[in-house]
Amino acid sequence: MIQRLVIFGVGLIGGSLALALRQAGHVVEVVGCSRNAANLEEAQRLGVIDRWTTDPVEACEGADVGVLAVPLGSMQGLAEALSGHWPESALLTDVGSSKQAVIESIRAGFGHLPRNFVAGHPIAGTEKSGVGAAFAELFRERLVILTPADETSPMATDRIAQMWRDAGARIEFMTPAHHDHVLAATSHLPHVLAFALVESLARLSESDEIFHYAAGGFRDFTRIASSDPVVWRDICIANREALLEVMERFQRDLETLRAQIAESDAATLESRFAFAKKARDRFSEKMQVQLDQ
Amino acid sequence: MIQRLVIFGVGLIGGSLALALRQAGHVVEVVGCSRNAANLEEAQRLGVIDRWTTDPVEACEGADVGVLAVPLGSMQGLAEALSGHWPESALLTDVGSSKQAVIESIRAGFGHLPRNFVAGHPIAGTEKSGVGAAFAELFRERLVILTPADETSPMATDRIAQMWRDAGARIEFMTPAHHDHVLAATSHLPHVLAFALVESLARLSESDEIFHYAAGGFRDFTRIASSDPVVWRDICIANREALLEVMERFQRDLETLRAQIAESDAATLESRFAFAKKARDRFSEKMQVQLDQ
Repeated sequence: MIQRLVIFGVGLIGGSLALALRQAGHVVEVVGCSRNAANLEEAQRLGVIDRWTTDPVEACEGADVGVLAVPLGSMQGLAEALSGHWPESALLTDVGSSKQAVIESIRAGFGHLPRNFVAGHPIAGTEKSGVGAAFAELFRERLVILTPADETSPMATDRIAQMWRDAGARIEFMTPAHHDHVLAATSHLPHVLAFALVESLARLSESDEIFHYAAGGFRDFTRIASSDPVVWRDICIANREALLEVMERFQRDLETLRAQIAESDAATLESRFAFAKKARDRFSEKMQVQLDQ
Repeated sequence: MIQRLVIFGVGLIGGSLALALRQAGHVVEVVGCSRNAANLEEAQRLGVIDRWTTDPVEACEGADVGVLAVPLGSMQGLAEALSGHWPESALLTDVGSSKQAVIESIRAGFGHLPRNFVAGHPIAGTEKSGVGAAFAELFRERLVILTPADETSPMATDRIAQMWRDAGARIEFMTPAHHDHVLAATSHLPHVLAFALVESLARLSESDEIFHYAAGGFRDFTRIASSDPVVWRDICIANREALLEVMERFQRDLETLRAQIAESDAATLESRFAFAKKARDRFSEKMQVQLDQ
């Protein structure tokens, strides 16, 4: 049972975690903290948090667990504000999409990496953002990846893992670098491609007409382009190195495909598409098995 | 009322059209024709067609309306087989994703463009293929684009438009070239990107692990990579010119985005992502309005 949970940045992820823990009866009090009072008022009105403050120092008082759910670019500034005030015995975790960058930000902000800080990333979300989109079931049967550092206390890691299990999630562990490499491929690159595609088509002179004729495939393909621009700006920069690696690889693959289309190379196109379809179908079956479990 | 409808290529699209017209009582008899007897037997067993033949010449007998629903690469060969046998008074249409290529194929196969041939394209589909995936509601409230040529009889165009309305669809008209340009952007490019992304990730040495950590965003983004490789091989080649144009534009946009990520150009990234999000949100609202109508 968490006595006092502090959510820094009460949006889709932070808000959904608070709701999940409240509904499951695993938290006594939830305090919200962000720069945006209107957002915090809405969160309180929606029953996501019990009370709020815009002052990070005030938010530290009597805290048992803190969750940093702000965009990656705001992480170091927040850590600086918490440094010297965050109770040494209280747990701290985050939900950022790039683990190496978060760990560096926390280390820089605190001047060291607190033993009770456990870096984490729930592999869940929707293209919607803001506390209005939060819901208690967001993490149910979803993976949460924890990437404890050498300094991290094993007991802190255990307790953060338990918090996520209480919210309905399953836990896996990996190194921060490996997390960043995997997420660049499965999440960051697809988001960049979706943003780039929608932008590219929207800049065409006849873009209104083009979107008029778009159908379900296009809607699904571009859904993630409705994601929060600030969050994704920060992810692209924070996980730059791993993202650029998969982007360059993808761009080379796309360029050879373009050349094969230009040459009407039917055999190669069919074999590449068939290979992709097979991989996608296999993934789809596995995902279905996971959902059925 | 159509007395005898002949579906050439009884897959998702051809099968769904047959089912829609049967269930609405707008057709007396449906004949299936393809090279694949097992597929035709399945279609008959599923109640999609009344009877079948693998011989295109036999399929012409007593036909009132014919629908060419084969991959684009098979279109000219089929037209050659029908030439001299297809009843002059019978209507002929197709469902191909590239209209200029289809019209050229029909012209080449018949030696001229039959006055009763009306090129068409239903903007509907799923990533599934084959007659087993067919369902009567596929075209309900969906757009069908008709691209009659100069030679096309206006009466034939009217009757094909009515057939699609009877199947639940809405009709719009445009030139073949304009259709190909619009579809390259909204459908062909997204499919190529989805195939390319899944292929690129599946070739990574740790691909199994990467797919293991993929979530809902990735699933939606890559769903169309499960589409039929032969159909899409043919679309890429048939609509090569328009597709290469939007691909090159997209590749340039992606390359500038990559450079901005490499430079951590936060302001530009945020503004590009925000522009894309706004366009996607606007599209999403319009689509919702359409679905609600």
